[in-house]
Amino acid sequence: MQVLSTQRSFEGSQERYRHFSTALNCEMNFSVYLPPRSGSKLPVLYWLSGLTCTDENFTNKAGAQRVAAELGIMLVVPDTSPRGEGVADAENAYDLGVGAGFYVNATQEPWSRHYRMYDYIVDELPSVIEGSFPTSNCRSISGHSMGGHGALVIALRNPHRYRAVSAFSPIANPTNSPWGKKAFSHYLGSDIERWRDYDATLLIETADRSQQLPILIDQGDADEFLAEQLKPERFIAASEAANYPVQFNMRAGYDHSYFFISTFIESHLRFHAEALRR
Amino acid sequence: MQVLSTQRSFEGSQERYRHFSTALNCEMNFSVYLPPRSGSKLPVLYWLSGLTCTDENFTNKAGAQRVAAELGIMLVVPDTSPRGEGVADAENAYDLGVGAGFYVNATQEPWSRHYRMYDYIVDELPSVIEGSFPTSNCRSISGHSMGGHGALVIALRNPHRYRAVSAFSPIANPTNSPWGKKAFSHYLGSDIERWRDYDATLLIETADRSQQLPILIDQGDADEFLAEQLKPERFIAASEAANYPVQFNMRAGYDHSYFFISTFIESHLRFHAEALRR
Repeated sequence: MQVLSTQRSFEGSQERYRHFSTALNCEMNFSVYLPPRSGSKLPVLYWLSGLTCTDENFTNKAGAQRVAAELGIMLVVPDTSPRGEGVADAENAYDLGVGAGFYVNATQEPWSRHYRMYDYIVDELPSVIEGSFPTSNCRSISGHSMGGHGALVIALRNPHRYRAVSAFSPIANPTNSPWGKKAFSHYLGSDIERWRDYDATLLIETADRSQQLPILIDQGDADEFLAEQLKPERFIAASEAANYPVQFNMRAGYDHSYFFISTFIESHLRFHAEALRR
Repeated sequence: MQVLSTQRSFEGSQERYRHFSTALNCEMNFSVYLPPRSGSKLPVLYWLSGLTCTDENFTNKAGAQRVAAELGIMLVVPDTSPRGEGVADAENAYDLGVGAGFYVNATQEPWSRHYRMYDYIVDELPSVIEGSFPTSNCRSISGHSMGGHGALVIALRNPHRYRAVSAFSPIANPTNSPWGKKAFSHYLGSDIERWRDYDATLLIETADRSQQLPILIDQGDADEFLAEQLKPERFIAASEAANYPVQFNMRAGYDHSYFFISTFIESHLRFHAEALRR
């Protein structure tokens, strides 16, 4: 694992690494924030970013370090897809290929050789983090847009591995969203039964009641993608039908940007801290 | 004045504008943050950015909106130089021309037609802001690196126009810095007597004692530019010789980046709020 940078932030350390991912079969960058050390082992919040992002957008724009420093939470921010020479990409598309991994394990050519972001986030990255940093085994997961989708899907499928999940403006029902349909048809093929495992609205319908996690979602009502792409109302309806409690906040006037995330990231970190502290 | 964007942030509004500047003789962008309205007129903090920046770096990375919202301060963030077709530039130089206006009024060809950032920041922009937004006449000024230099110079030369000044990692003695010497020789010519008006260390030596402003400076001791380019120790020595109080904080482990600024921006905003409230 190669250290790309180490920078002091809120008396802790903002760090960037490069490592070879066996799941993705390429070099990957990730960023971490280490809060000032208390001596105790650190709980970890994984943040999954949205379309076009790298590990740097959240790191530079969300303002999360201040609160993570106070709460003693380590932040881990992966990239959003495999990258680099030899990695398949879609020309002139921001919503497929590089920067758009959708947190799935692709089964179709030419994507299946590298696009296994689900395995990378669920298994490989936590194993790298927990082998290299002074962490506890308490994990939590959050994300934005495509990353909100990823966080919800990963937490619903692996409730034993996380203490809580939250999302900003998630693509909540991707099998009914143009972004989701495009990505899933390329990565997973035309059989839509294969898409079910990556749709939070379909997953919560059948989630195990004995393993419910705390779920928090914030959504701006001035979000330009709300009606066509995100559809949180379908996730909320499914969670109610399944008796799965979800805290959902519709925020008046907010859009899809990091100005929205930075406004409410503190409340999400405090939500995770409470679950991680238990 | 053209509105480029309006985005909700911390219950206030992050906005971006374009206008024609008569001082600079070109179109200019600036960003403002309007805190949630209390009905009373808003005091204004001007933020001057460093080399290569536009109005967007501070806006996206500093995390200032949270504190400005709480304190009821309007933030105004101009660009760092004139820009656009017909504006002189230096090829392959990040420290001269576009993105590197150094907050001076250039007297030399080819710069003098557009590069009048001093007049733009001192007179034109405040007049635009105060004519367009519900502001009080209470102004304050801050900045980073080249912008820290600009803030100190402008406040020391116009103490009647500001309530306080602060800086992160300022180029504190540009007539003794490679960045300053290069910029001043191009913009102001070879007569170094003409440079005095733009050097905070030289200006504080002769500052009017009856018009002293509160001054706060933060500097990281791991800043890669500290010894060669910034030289805050010369400014501090001059301020002590002149009996001009300066709050100076050397911060262990911090570098020149926005991770440093975001860590301490809250303390700077509270420092300005106290002066603006008087």
